[in-house]
Amino acid sequence: MSKDPFTITIHMVSSLDGIIAKPDNSVAWFETKDHYEKGVSEPDTQEFLKNIDCYVMGSRTYEHALELSRNYGWAYGEVPTFVLSHRNLPVERPNVKIFNGDLTKLVDENLKPNYNNVWMVGGAALAKAFILQKLAHEIRMTVLPIILGEGLHFFDHIGQEQALHLKEVTPYKSGMVELWYEIRK
Amino acid sequence: MSKDPFTITIHMVSSLDGIIAKPDNSVAWFETKDHYEKGVSEPDTQEFLKNIDCYVMGSRTYEHALELSRNYGWAYGEVPTFVLSHRNLPVERPNVKIFNGDLTKLVDENLKPNYNNVWMVGGAALAKAFILQKLAHEIRMTVLPIILGEGLHFFDHIGQEQALHLKEVTPYKSGMVELWYEIRK
Repeated sequence: MSKDPFTITIHMVSSLDGIIAKPDNSVAWFETKDHYEKGVSEPDTQEFLKNIDCYVMGSRTYEHALELSRNYGWAYGEVPTFVLSHRNLPVERPNVKIFNGDLTKLVDENLKPNYNNVWMVGGAALAKAFILQKLAHEIRMTVLPIILGEGLHFFDHIGQEQALHLKEVTPYKSGMVELWYEIRK
Repeated sequence: MSKDPFTITIHMVSSLDGIIAKPDNSVAWFETKDHYEKGVSEPDTQEFLKNIDCYVMGSRTYEHALELSRNYGWAYGEVPTFVLSHRNLPVERPNVKIFNGDLTKLVDENLKPNYNNVWMVGGAALAKAFILQKLAHEIRMTVLPIILGEGLHFFDHIGQEQALHLKEVTPYKSGMVELWYEIRK
């Protein structure tokens, strides 16, 4: 499989109704109680994650990750992580940088020269900016077998049509389905 | 595969961002320009549809279908169709009934005794009522390879969690993916 040398992937884990965070930010819903016999086994997360050489996230996603790190550890390991924010956020790790600037500048000056496989892990506003400014190449949406009913929607009124190309569909034994798309030029 | 003798299926065709109708109600986006090599061929629609022995829809879905029927014909053929509405809507076909009453009554008195395979084809408010009142058994969501950006969302703040069981995933050559769930009791 050929691979673009520089790829920005928008990644999200969502309920069937497109929600990525519950109002109380609890994460127990990630543990599905479903079983889909025909699905593949869950990927070896460590193996999978080691292909990612940079993370990008918005400030609220970062704050949420910091909060979760108190109980579950920091989810993004030693991988360089850029947090887009105009705010003065606490930084607790040497591999985390707060970036207070233009998205195009981040991509052209910080990401493209240094990384190949960049994952944008939230939130909705930043994903919207990446899509509207045509800066992202792929979307990987993992759909969990649940309707959450309320919370934060991933796609927050993008306001513009964007054609996609289906690249891969992977159903897992846990009932999760990963939909992997290329964003068409 | 065993089959529930009486099944109400909520069916929708949606963009990746969960939109089922564009603001102008145009339907050209249903014709995907994508190609997914590993997908299966499109189903024989006539063959597929003949398993459905009753449709249920809300009033605006009905009005939209009527409007489309001027150019494309009536999409639901001779199959008995119930339109839930308190309004006095025009009826142009003998197989269409306007039902002005309680949803449970519709299911218990009109659907259950007469049909096996009932499809609820829209819209969002009616789907919500079916889910909240635990009257639907399955959800089949066909995701098209596009972000629409604005329009009518299928899941309109359900307001309640609902666990699902993944029953089948079918990717098509056109880049459509059908996600088929059972609604857990």
